[in-house]
Amino acid sequence: MAMSTWTEYVFARKLGRAPSPGDVVELVPDLVGFHDLTGYHVLEMMEKMGGVEVFDKDKLVVAFDHLSPAPTVRAAEIQVYIRRHVRAIGLKNFHDVGEGIMHQIILEKYALPAHFIFGADSHTNTAGAVGAFAQGMGATDIAAMLKIGRTWLVVPQPIKIEIRGEPPAAVTGKDVVLHLLSVYKAEGLNGYSADVYVERPSAFPMDYRATVANMSTELGADAMMFVPDSETYAYLEKTRGAAPRVDFVPGGKYIDEYTVELDRLEPLVAAPHSVDNVKSVREVEGVEVDQVFIGSCTNGRLSDIEAAARILKRGRAKARCIAIPASYSVFRQALEAGYIDVLTKAGCVVTYGTCGPCIGGHFGVLGPGETAVSTSNRNFVGRMGANDSKVYLANAYTAAAAALEGRIVDPRKYL
Amino acid sequence: MAMSTWTEYVFARKLGRAPSPGDVVELVPDLVGFHDLTGYHVLEMMEKMGGVEVFDKDKLVVAFDHLSPAPTVRAAEIQVYIRRHVRAIGLKNFHDVGEGIMHQIILEKYALPAHFIFGADSHTNTAGAVGAFAQGMGATDIAAMLKIGRTWLVVPQPIKIEIRGEPPAAVTGKDVVLHLLSVYKAEGLNGYSADVYVERPSAFPMDYRATVANMSTELGADAMMFVPDSETYAYLEKTRGAAPRVDFVPGGKYIDEYTVELDRLEPLVAAPHSVDNVKSVREVEGVEVDQVFIGSCTNGRLSDIEAAARILKRGRAKARCIAIPASYSVFRQALEAGYIDVLTKAGCVVTYGTCGPCIGGHFGVLGPGETAVSTSNRNFVGRMGANDSKVYLANAYTAAAAALEGRIVDPRKYL
Repeated sequence: MAMSTWTEYVFARKLGRAPSPGDVVELVPDLVGFHDLTGYHVLEMMEKMGGVEVFDKDKLVVAFDHLSPAPTVRAAEIQVYIRRHVRAIGLKNFHDVGEGIMHQIILEKYALPAHFIFGADSHTNTAGAVGAFAQGMGATDIAAMLKIGRTWLVVPQPIKIEIRGEPPAAVTGKDVVLHLLSVYKAEGLNGYSADVYVERPSAFPMDYRATVANMSTELGADAMMFVPDSETYAYLEKTRGAAPRVDFVPGGKYIDEYTVELDRLEPLVAAPHSVDNVKSVREVEGVEVDQVFIGSCTNGRLSDIEAAARILKRGRAKARCIAIPASYSVFRQALEAGYIDVLTKAGCVVTYGTCGPCIGGHFGVLGPGETAVSTSNRNFVGRMGANDSKVYLANAYTAAAAALEGRIVDPRKYL
Repeated sequence: MAMSTWTEYVFARKLGRAPSPGDVVELVPDLVGFHDLTGYHVLEMMEKMGGVEVFDKDKLVVAFDHLSPAPTVRAAEIQVYIRRHVRAIGLKNFHDVGEGIMHQIILEKYALPAHFIFGADSHTNTAGAVGAFAQGMGATDIAAMLKIGRTWLVVPQPIKIEIRGEPPAAVTGKDVVLHLLSVYKAEGLNGYSADVYVERPSAFPMDYRATVANMSTELGADAMMFVPDSETYAYLEKTRGAAPRVDFVPGGKYIDEYTVELDRLEPLVAAPHSVDNVKSVREVEGVEVDQVFIGSCTNGRLSDIEAAARILKRGRAKARCIAIPASYSVFRQALEAGYIDVLTKAGCVVTYGTCGPCIGGHFGVLGPGETAVSTSNRNFVGRMGANDSKVYLANAYTAAAAALEGRIVDPRKYL
């Protein structure tokens, strides 16, 4: 193949021709997903369109994650409704209560480089971590796509982000994406697709990439894709056996380029109430914290649980601590590695495979006037509970250190 | 002291005289408790009575268990409200999110033989397991008691229950109390206090006693007390160091006596929709099960988690399985014993220290038409969720076996 941007490559590979940014194209999705909260709307819309028959049932993934295990009769009713349809469809890629957050399951089991993945959830772009063009869409779009097996897109403008060097202590993917939010601001990448190149692949592992791709939603990017490298293939081989390589030759023109120098970063937070209200942890040290949440599709992976355990082995948490590995697989690995032992010894309440407090859904909703440090992806007014609660978004080191002291502190003192 | 029934003994010890059944007596409580769901009403009522000052703050225990971690903003708001008052009171016996279900915490840390314990929750009588006169009361009664340091009771009629022999395979305290429910029926012991004597103390351990005392609520008993024996003192010494012995000399007159012969029991269930719709597990084998819940103040103790693990080590659960050790302490012991490893390997979703699905509160509410096997204490219409859901109450062996097969089966086949 000719030299191109990764964005151009994935479109050309899919369409058999190279479209220009701004073109409206129609394409066949490689994977479509929905969860309990949006699934109800997707299926209801499909029923209105004549039935829930799916264009290709092997390309559909369904996971219960938002309100799971069900915290209300209504949530349970929706699960019963979706299970009935899932059985009727004969869906094999169905992940019931506890199996994991949809984005994490897609990453662990289904996503492949250059695939087009669409999900009825805004953080579907997490799959960009392995180089998939992944995007969240509304339930109606997803319903139509599942019926007709096609969707349309406006081809985005590609930009290039390069990640150089190695992360210093207590710096992770979260700090990279918070840094990008301080540069581009919330929604700043609307209409753009960001191709991310990692200078030293093993220094910026898949967990970190997934965090960055996940919060490209907050950047407003149409997609963010980590260009497949040795780390990508190592991850794919570990999680699902051999993965086909793509014949991509880097090149092409980007309308913007930005380089992240990892060694210049330090632990960051997004202070209330905006994802781009980015500060260093040092600037907000001393803020009293009622609850810490370690988990979500942003930071509920093994390296996050490990980071939290590295800090929380120091003692008992002073703030309320909720720790939820993003999937069954992550929980089992964390259990076997002894991290669940450390976290619960420190007093963290644990479970697994649910979004929980991230969305103010259940299992740790914030009360009036409460302040949380959360490893999740959004901190707008009321996101995690009461309208006058406050959320600081941070990495798992910072969150765990805040749990330990009951206030925000620089986690590097514990490493 | 003279010979007496245990009920007479505890009243005489408290009052300095022996009242007759039917007498109205006034006494000073030894321990008073409330949780998040009733605590709000207790404190609000106290505020109306002039303030939340407590007659003796060392005699108050507060635990968050019903909606914890908070599944709604309202639940979180109530927790914020209670924490504020708890701080103002200077309460040391406060157990925040995750520490455990109030009844379990009272059993583990506070309850003593012959104490009078009152709580704003109907299953407060669980503390009868160590020989305490323990009773649930309404929030207003508890509020008044906390203000003035006294309460009144109608002295109940004492009856005697004797537990003889050793339990056969897969028979636990749950089967004893279900058997008693088949004999006395729901509310059949209203106005009575049941003194329970165990022939072979170590054959019927504290966990089993707590289950029986817990469901004396469903029997309608004013209280049910296990007369302290070697097992009682061994438990108290293990959980809180040396425990003072009481100078009780068994005797006195009972108006009714009943003997449970353990070796004649088999695993039982209470079928929908009544606690006294008791059948043998054999009679209901084959009923398809959507969800299994192992936990609650009835059966969330270590022996229950161990029983479940003995069955679930056989493979992966076919029904949705929710396992919630009743307290932090039970979870930690279960983790260290490897039971959490077994249960999660089998696919059970775990957390700890919350009532969760027992009350249809959160973390596994039943949807329309769903059937559950639950180790909890109530199965009336809608208790665990949708009005047309069905609940079979059973012990942890039966529950785990139902999880394993996705239908009710006799658990003895796995032992």
